Amino acid sequence: MAKSSPEDEHPIKTLAWGARDSSGLISPFPLSRRENRDEDVNIKILYCGVCHSDLHAAKNEWGFTSYPVVPGHEIVGVVTSVGNNVKKFKAGDQVGVGVIVESCKSCENCEEDRENYCPKLVYTYNAHLHDGSKTYGGYSDKIVVDQRYVLRIPENLPLDGTAPLLCAGITVYSPMKYYGMNEKGKHLGVVGLGGLGHVAVKIGKAFGLKVTVISTSPKKKAEAISKLGADSFLVSTDPEQMKAAAETMDYIMDTVSAVHALAPLLSLLKLNGKLITVGLPNKPLELPISSLVVARRMVGGSNFGGLKETQEMLDFCAEHNIAADVEVIKMDDINNAMERLAKSDVQYRFVIDIANSLK
Amino acid sequence: MAKSSPEDEHPIKTLAWGARDSSGLISPFPLSRRENRDEDVNIKILYCGVCHSDLHAAKNEWGFTSYPVVPGHEIVGVVTSVGNNVKKFKAGDQVGVGVIVESCKSCENCEEDRENYCPKLVYTYNAHLHDGSKTYGGYSDKIVVDQRYVLRIPENLPLDGTAPLLCAGITVYSPMKYYGMNEKGKHLGVVGLGGLGHVAVKIGKAFGLKVTVISTSPKKKAEAISKLGADSFLVSTDPEQMKAAAETMDYIMDTVSAVHALAPLLSLLKLNGKLITVGLPNKPLELPISSLVVARRMVGGSNFGGLKETQEMLDFCAEHNIAADVEVIKMDDINNAMERLAKSDVQYRFVIDIANSLK
Repeated sequence: MAKSSPEDEHPIKTLAWGARDSSGLISPFPLSRRENRDEDVNIKILYCGVCHSDLHAAKNEWGFTSYPVVPGHEIVGVVTSVGNNVKKFKAGDQVGVGVIVESCKSCENCEEDRENYCPKLVYTYNAHLHDGSKTYGGYSDKIVVDQRYVLRIPENLPLDGTAPLLCAGITVYSPMKYYGMNEKGKHLGVVGLGGLGHVAVKIGKAFGLKVTVISTSPKKKAEAISKLGADSFLVSTDPEQMKAAAETMDYIMDTVSAVHALAPLLSLLKLNGKLITVGLPNKPLELPISSLVVARRMVGGSNFGGLKETQEMLDFCAEHNIAADVEVIKMDDINNAMERLAKSDVQYRFVIDIANSLK
Repeated sequence: MAKSSPEDEHPIKTLAWGARDSSGLISPFPLSRRENRDEDVNIKILYCGVCHSDLHAAKNEWGFTSYPVVPGHEIVGVVTSVGNNVKKFKAGDQVGVGVIVESCKSCENCEEDRENYCPKLVYTYNAHLHDGSKTYGGYSDKIVVDQRYVLRIPENLPLDGTAPLLCAGITVYSPMKYYGMNEKGKHLGVVGLGGLGHVAVKIGKAFGLKVTVISTSPKKKAEAISKLGADSFLVSTDPEQMKAAAETMDYIMDTVSAVHALAPLLSLLKLNGKLITVGLPNKPLELPISSLVVARRMVGGSNFGGLKETQEMLDFCAEHNIAADVEVIKMDDINNAMERLAKSDVQYRFVIDIANSLK
């Protein structure tokens, strides 16, 4: 078990920013990273996305933050060195790290490339590795990660816009594959046009779907259609629009984390329609059973994805030129960015330019 | 449009019992049935199951009962004559009629044998045929039905115990097929040991599943195991039993119509587990989204089944010697039976011995 301070615990000195208490204020925080082991990839971080989870963790809004916390699990960087057993990566490679950095490697889920459902998975920050040492995330200039949890970033993708794919991208891609929501010509509704939703629109289009953005904000229409490529836009607070759209959709990707009504969304689904929730409202939602029964609809969940599927998603995005739309910020803008994020005032993901901020 | 009284509307005099108002009291009610048309099968009714829907309709508990109502949609009988175009059936055949007696025959659902989801389906009672005449159900001695909506009853099945399969049986069989809840060796939980639940146990065992009955009543254990063939029994109000059973089930068939908690049931499901609701609670249930997300669980609904699948279910039940466990009553016991049904005091379905009651 590690006993020294985060700064002295390991040999590799690391610059980082983190939160020390539930104020959530993020400030410079000296850190260290472990020496490369045989399976390790040593990464110089270039960009790190700002996921809504980072905000929850910094402010302890989920109640399980262990301070200090260095957030960040949408990490893109370049390999600086690799351990003896690492053949997949070499110095100079562009790589990514997402939501987890360890799992048991031996359970059924790990063996079937579903590390994201391994009971012993270790999150990239605010968690403990199996050796007892604490994990610190990507708001830092270096990270050392077992090669199994490192992704290859295709050459043609922009590094800043790719960072959010490591969490937001896989979180919407995985359920679309698992639940069969990728049948060309089918109609997908995307609820919530934030970090996850805007990537869902792009991935949906790449699957050949008709995509409708469902939002409470009419002002998002122009951008949803012209910039993100959605086919249509539905204002969920307009009863006439909602009525006209009843039973027209095959799938709905619901990315909303706030408590919201499922009944109006379910009514948009055709027979056998599927609504997938990837947000995490902090209270139960009301489920109208009759709406499931009369049209054999279903509501399902999904929690990011395994490493193999994350690589597949990255390769898919590269093939279809999909990256997140981002606002690139410097590390010392982070507290302002967090405030804006809390108000959903971002199009559509903040990404920290780590390489030019932490020197 | 039909304008005369139910007794005089059609040429075939029919004895029936029905409810005239929301007291739900069921009493003799003179009826008539139409003359056989080319596609029609004329049936002498022998048995009719008493579905919980009959009680709801008789008392107008769903708010759309059009009195007078003659309930009954679990009908078994014998063919007395057939129309000119009927080749599938002949006089003397044992046949059944379930939840619907007409649909549009031309929509995508009808063309793909999902008449149960046809927007123009016509229920066996408390509805209107496309010619405007009202439908009256199986609490009667005769019924005339288009051959498409008539099922063949396999020879080896008991007629009284087969009647409930026409609604309860297909209602649990269809989702087990559609949602893939029939993989040999998997673990099925059945919630609610009533008309639907007890058939779900038997069908689950026939699919080769391990079946656990989940109930609030410990006293049902012995019978669930010894008589119905369940492998185990879980008392849902016992926190220790529930905890020990966490993440052990692949599927749950939830047949409970009352408002109830989904969270404890979802926690019983493994990764990728499926909970199917076939009851119709009159209020939304609370859905804990996090429970869906963390283990990629889903909640789905289903509404009885199409005619082809209903025939498949009957043949499957014949092959596996599955019939409902029934209490056979006479027609004039119906009001007492309804009272007991309202208290779930029946093992497990009342079936009216029509042939020996209505003469």
